Amino acid sequence: MHTEIICIGSELLIGSMNTNGAYISEKLATVGLKVNREIAVGDDFPELENVFSESLDRCDIIVTTGGLGPTFDDITREVVSKDTGKKLVPDKNVLKTILEFFEKKKIKMPKVNEKQSYILEGAEIIPNSLGTASGQILEIKNKIIILLPGPPRELKPMFENNVLPYLKKKFERGLLKIKVLHTVGLAESVVDEKIRKIVDIEKKLEGSEVSFSILAKHTGVDMKIIVSGTDEMLIDKTIQNLKKEFYDVLKDSIFGEDNQTLESVVGELLLKKRKTLAVAESCTGGLISHRLTNVAGSSMYFKEGIVTYSDISKKRLLGVKDETLNRYGAVSSDVAQEMAEGIKKTSGTNFGISTTGIAGPKPSSTGKPVGLVFIALASNDGTKVQQFQFTGSRAEIKDKIATAALDILRMNLI
Amino acid sequence: MHTEIICIGSELLIGSMNTNGAYISEKLATVGLKVNREIAVGDDFPELENVFSESLDRCDIIVTTGGLGPTFDDITREVVSKDTGKKLVPDKNVLKTILEFFEKKKIKMPKVNEKQSYILEGAEIIPNSLGTASGQILEIKNKIIILLPGPPRELKPMFENNVLPYLKKKFERGLLKIKVLHTVGLAESVVDEKIRKIVDIEKKLEGSEVSFSILAKHTGVDMKIIVSGTDEMLIDKTIQNLKKEFYDVLKDSIFGEDNQTLESVVGELLLKKRKTLAVAESCTGGLISHRLTNVAGSSMYFKEGIVTYSDISKKRLLGVKDETLNRYGAVSSDVAQEMAEGIKKTSGTNFGISTTGIAGPKPSSTGKPVGLVFIALASNDGTKVQQFQFTGSRAEIKDKIATAALDILRMNLI
Repeated sequence: MHTEIICIGSELLIGSMNTNGAYISEKLATVGLKVNREIAVGDDFPELENVFSESLDRCDIIVTTGGLGPTFDDITREVVSKDTGKKLVPDKNVLKTILEFFEKKKIKMPKVNEKQSYILEGAEIIPNSLGTASGQILEIKNKIIILLPGPPRELKPMFENNVLPYLKKKFERGLLKIKVLHTVGLAESVVDEKIRKIVDIEKKLEGSEVSFSILAKHTGVDMKIIVSGTDEMLIDKTIQNLKKEFYDVLKDSIFGEDNQTLESVVGELLLKKRKTLAVAESCTGGLISHRLTNVAGSSMYFKEGIVTYSDISKKRLLGVKDETLNRYGAVSSDVAQEMAEGIKKTSGTNFGISTTGIAGPKPSSTGKPVGLVFIALASNDGTKVQQFQFTGSRAEIKDKIATAALDILRMNLI
Repeated sequence: MHTEIICIGSELLIGSMNTNGAYISEKLATVGLKVNREIAVGDDFPELENVFSESLDRCDIIVTTGGLGPTFDDITREVVSKDTGKKLVPDKNVLKTILEFFEKKKIKMPKVNEKQSYILEGAEIIPNSLGTASGQILEIKNKIIILLPGPPRELKPMFENNVLPYLKKKFERGLLKIKVLHTVGLAESVVDEKIRKIVDIEKKLEGSEVSFSILAKHTGVDMKIIVSGTDEMLIDKTIQNLKKEFYDVLKDSIFGEDNQTLESVVGELLLKKRKTLAVAESCTGGLISHRLTNVAGSSMYFKEGIVTYSDISKKRLLGVKDETLNRYGAVSSDVAQEMAEGIKKTSGTNFGISTTGIAGPKPSSTGKPVGLVFIALASNDGTKVQQFQFTGSRAEIKDKIATAALDILRMNLI
């Protein structure tokens, strides 16, 4: 089943991120459809015509995004019509929904929008509840062509509610499941070495096809286990077995799976153990609090965060001593310790976390290097301080520090 | 000059974002090279061979990313060798740098990495200071083939330091400049309507080619002005003229240009006016502090942030009154006002900003709706509170509130 995604829009070729390709390929995988190519092309008639006709030769399934708007440079409908030989026919019902869309906004429909009511002869219409560009599904000579609008907020519900159910029905036989394991604290090369044996051998499992991919981000390494086949029970069992092997070699470095984040896992652990947390941040500047509060319901365990971006704040809000600041400087093990103990005490929580370091891009005035950081965790068992030396941009260093701090708490909770 | 980017890696076809394509296309535009297609393809020998040979037929320039690692599924070198007929030859100097890379880490070079020292006959080597995968530039029959590794942190410096200077030298004639204008607070349809006249008429400027694109994000709308030609003075003048027209219709809604962010602009204004800021956050959970501290040097004006995720914290740290909380609830205009005034007073800054609202996904226990938020700005001129009703996911609502708060401060500073 050769499948391609064609993303149409000149902005994609001058620096805009192609988020639709990533979204659609991930969704197609869930119904057992592996994408062979993703192509981005501009709003350029001859170029798109070439791209589309080549794909039409190769493919069983083509999904296009973009180019369904009302303006002159929206050309997807016309190109597909030309390449497939299917006429564009005005559809009264589609026109009605477009008129209603404008009525609701109390605007008269501009004449150009009429063009959006034209449908390829024989195509099924995919309604768009958030915009005026309907999608279309055309079946032609055992091939399937699916046209979708470009804006992700319009495309996604159309894909979930119409395209996926349609494809599921069509391709009930094939099935593909993805299991993602998230690690933290290990370099890609280390993860790679540890899992090499599993990855090299297990590919030969019978009855289900297995593949792996590794994705290294600056805050950790993700592994994807991709299993396809026809027997769901077998697929699930294969995933379970492989998961176990990964956990055996990577142990606690795996902090979560699939949609879990480090902060959601930390939140679950705090809830489960009925513990509360407060955070005192210097170099991370609020990022740890921000990540913790991205989790719905975090007010159950996260009580307060204090961002002390000056010595005065550290003293007044956290009780850091003048003497400590003078003797060791703000970026020091001792100040980290006093910050963590200070926030724990003032907020009355079970845990206090603190960060103090040099996020960059310039070293401190006293010559402490960019990326140097002290992270402290204060608990009822006392306070532990760890020193790290991170590299990267200011944003990356902030991310790495926040990740390390959350992971220190996680390790304390498991 | 037909140019294509081929991004290689199976992860790109099951949901991973193709960030390299966006990065490279934007950079190529700066030297006047418009990308015709971007293709993502897996680590699959026959499929990549097809993709590459087709591109080779069509293209003057091909840039590939990925598939230069040491493992069995890194196949880019081999595919290009096969399709171009250029042998892969071991290079002693490249091998030496790989050996040194491992020596520094005190690891013996694994045998598999030797493969990375093979270079296409006649290719120029692009050194990789952050990894073991060298890049290559091959000129063959008036075509240029550029091979780059997949990890963005390795690819980007190689592109900036080697590929761009190389291409600049090759294609000195053509020139393309991009000017991005960032707006805040206006819906895409409003921006679109306001700029329609400029966009529709100005396309016919002489001596330089002009195009526009609009990108709507949930926190604002960006406009790109793209001007190409051969005369740099004319290009700059065209951009200046168009910029002026955009400012004339959009006025203060444009908060910045190019790499500026709302937080960097706010920072510049605070610095210029020698004012200081502290932030008291409830529903944004640290995001405003995080964004402010993403700007290098922000400690000059940003003094402290307090994330009060409980009523107790609001009282103890910000001096919010029991009576106010009881009468109006935490999400209220009065509490927002007391929070902003409290943080301004306790931190001794010129400005205090506060946010209190319902980030979702669930409404408050007292039935206040998701997305309802009060933002207060306390200054020496008194305190102003504004009420908003935002929509979206929890993360989007946090983003929108933080953006609105920063923009209220910006409007107060200009």
